[in-house]
Amino acid sequence: MKADRILLSHGSGGRLSHQLIKDLLVPTFDNPLLNRLDDGAIFQTNATRLVMTTDSYVVDPIFFPGGDIGKLAVSGTVNDLAVMGATPRYLSLGLLIEEGFLLEDLRRILDSIRKTCQQAGVEIVTGDTKVVPRGSLDKIFINTSGVGEIPEGLELSGRIQPGDRIIINGTIGDHGTTILAQREGLNMDTPLQSDCAPLNDLIASLRPFAGEIRLMRDPTRGGVATTLNEFVEGAPVGIDLYEEKLPFRQEVRALCEILGIDPLFLANEGKVILVVSARISEQVLATLREQPLGQEATVIGEVTADHPGRVVLETNLGTRRILDMLTGEQLPRIC
Amino acid sequence: MKADRILLSHGSGGRLSHQLIKDLLVPTFDNPLLNRLDDGAIFQTNATRLVMTTDSYVVDPIFFPGGDIGKLAVSGTVNDLAVMGATPRYLSLGLLIEEGFLLEDLRRILDSIRKTCQQAGVEIVTGDTKVVPRGSLDKIFINTSGVGEIPEGLELSGRIQPGDRIIINGTIGDHGTTILAQREGLNMDTPLQSDCAPLNDLIASLRPFAGEIRLMRDPTRGGVATTLNEFVEGAPVGIDLYEEKLPFRQEVRALCEILGIDPLFLANEGKVILVVSARISEQVLATLREQPLGQEATVIGEVTADHPGRVVLETNLGTRRILDMLTGEQLPRIC
Repeated sequence: MKADRILLSHGSGGRLSHQLIKDLLVPTFDNPLLNRLDDGAIFQTNATRLVMTTDSYVVDPIFFPGGDIGKLAVSGTVNDLAVMGATPRYLSLGLLIEEGFLLEDLRRILDSIRKTCQQAGVEIVTGDTKVVPRGSLDKIFINTSGVGEIPEGLELSGRIQPGDRIIINGTIGDHGTTILAQREGLNMDTPLQSDCAPLNDLIASLRPFAGEIRLMRDPTRGGVATTLNEFVEGAPVGIDLYEEKLPFRQEVRALCEILGIDPLFLANEGKVILVVSARISEQVLATLREQPLGQEATVIGEVTADHPGRVVLETNLGTRRILDMLTGEQLPRIC
Repeated sequence: MKADRILLSHGSGGRLSHQLIKDLLVPTFDNPLLNRLDDGAIFQTNATRLVMTTDSYVVDPIFFPGGDIGKLAVSGTVNDLAVMGATPRYLSLGLLIEEGFLLEDLRRILDSIRKTCQQAGVEIVTGDTKVVPRGSLDKIFINTSGVGEIPEGLELSGRIQPGDRIIINGTIGDHGTTILAQREGLNMDTPLQSDCAPLNDLIASLRPFAGEIRLMRDPTRGGVATTLNEFVEGAPVGIDLYEEKLPFRQEVRALCEILGIDPLFLANEGKVILVVSARISEQVLATLREQPLGQEATVIGEVTADHPGRVVLETNLGTRRILDMLTGEQLPRIC
C-alpha cells in the first residue's frame, strides 16, 4: 500500500484491488471464511431459523465522540439481528469510497469495525469495495448486512397487551444529539457522546424471559417516538409514555432545549426498547441493570387499551399529548 | 406518494419513510418475509451449508441497453451465490438515493429488480433506504446482499489440474463495452447490449457434473483476464488461452479496436468461467448449449503445468504473450 489515498484503481477489480484486499482487509478481519476470498462465504449452521438484515451507513461526520461510521455500522447490524431474537454471527462489509479518501482514515475505520466485531462476537466473512470518482459520493458509505441464528425454541410473542411495560436500557437521544452538536460545532461543558454499541450480550441476557417479551426494537432513525408508534400502528392498543420517567443525560436535555428539538425523535444507536409482560418487568429490569449497557434501564411507559393506535405522553405538567411518528426530516445523515 | 421526487424525509425513518415502504417497496416485492417489516427477515432452512455474499452497484449510467442498475444488482448477487455452488434464495436491498431523484426512475429500477428476482427465483426479504442531501452521492447506489443454500453433498473440488478445460458460456466484454459506448455517446451500426443476467438456472443445470467442476467464477470487474489470473495465482499450474477461440460479438471487437481497449479486461455481467476436467468438458458444453444463456458456450483454454501462476495468450499470429491482471483502472463505475 504505497499510496496514502484511495485511488480509482483500488476499486477496479484488478491488481490494486487485490492489493487492498490482501494488504489491508484480510489482515484486519483475518478469519478462515473471509480469507478464502471467494465470491461469497460458505458457513455451516445447525440452526433451522436464520435472520438476515441489511443497513447502509452515511453518517456525517464519519468520526464522532463515542464512535465512527465503522463502529456504527457493525453495532447497527448486530442490534437489528439481536432484537429479532437472533445470535448475530456473520457480517458482510460493503465499502463505497470516494477517490482520494485518506488511507489512514480507512485504516482507522476498519480497525474500529474489527474491534466492534470482536466485542459482538461476529465476523466479517465477505465484502465488496467500490471506489467512485471524486464528487460521486461524500467520503465513505458503508453497508453491513448480517446473518444470525435463532436459538431452538425461542419465540417472541409479538402481541402486545394492555398492562405490558415499556422498558429502555438507558438514556435517550445521545447519538442524535452528538452528531448534531458535531455538525453545528457546538461545545457543551460536559461533552456529548454517542451511545453507539452492540447490544447482543445485553439482549441475550434476557433469553430466560423470551416467552414474555412481546417485542424488542432499537430506536434508531425516527427515535423512541417513532418506534413506539410502530408498535401500536393499526393495533387494538396504545401506549402511555411517562415524561418524568424518560432518562435523558443533562447535556442532551440542555442542547435539545436550546435548539428546540425533541430528543424523543432523535436517533439512538445503543438502545433497545422492550415491551414485556407486567409480571416479569421487575426481573427484566434487574437483569438489564447487571449488564454494562443496561445499568440505567427503566420503565418508561405502559400499554393501554384506552387509545388504540396512539402513543400518548403524560407530561411533567400533568397534561397529555399525542406523540406522533417523526414527520419531515430533522437531521439527514444521522446514521 | 404525492411528490415526484425523493425527499430527504423519505430517508428519515419517520412518516414519509413508512409511506415509501408501504406504498412502493412492499407492493413491489410483496412476500411474507418482507411484509412483516421487522428489523430483519426470519427464514427457515434445512440446509446446513449456506453462502453469504454482498455487492454494491454504482454503475453510470443507471439505465443502459440490456439492463439497469437494478437488474445488474440482482444478477450480480445471484451469480456470486451460484458460482459458489449455492441455490440463491434470499436477497437484501440497500438503497442509497440522492435527494431529488425522480420517483419515476426509482419505480422503474424497483420494477426491474422485481422482474430479475422472479427470473432468478429469489426474494427481497429485507431492506434499508437512505436518502442523502443533493451532491452527497450521484443519483442512486444499490447494495444487494444474498444468502443461498448449498445442496447436500455438493462439492466443487477447487484444485485445478493440468489438462482441465476452461469454458465460458458466451461472448466476452459485452457489458463493459456497452457502458463505455453509452458514456462516450458512441453509436454502433449494431447496437451494443449488456449481457447482464442471472445465471443460476444455467449453473444449476451443471449439478450432475459438480464433482468434476473444479471452479466457477463470474468475470465481472477486471474481466476474463483478471479472473483467470486469480485461478492460477500462487498455484502450481498456469493457463493457456487460445485467442482464436475467444468469442466476441463483432460490434464489441470493433469498438475495442477503435478505442484501443482489450475486451479481456472488460466486465461481463452474464458470464461464468468454468474450469472442468477434460473428461467431462464435452458433456458440460452440450449441457450449457441447451440453456438460453449458454448457447454460445465454448472452450477457450486449458490448464497447463508449463508456466505455473501465469496466464498465457496464444495469439492468432502464433505468438504467445503473458496476460496479466488488470492494472490501473480502465473504466470506473462499470458495475
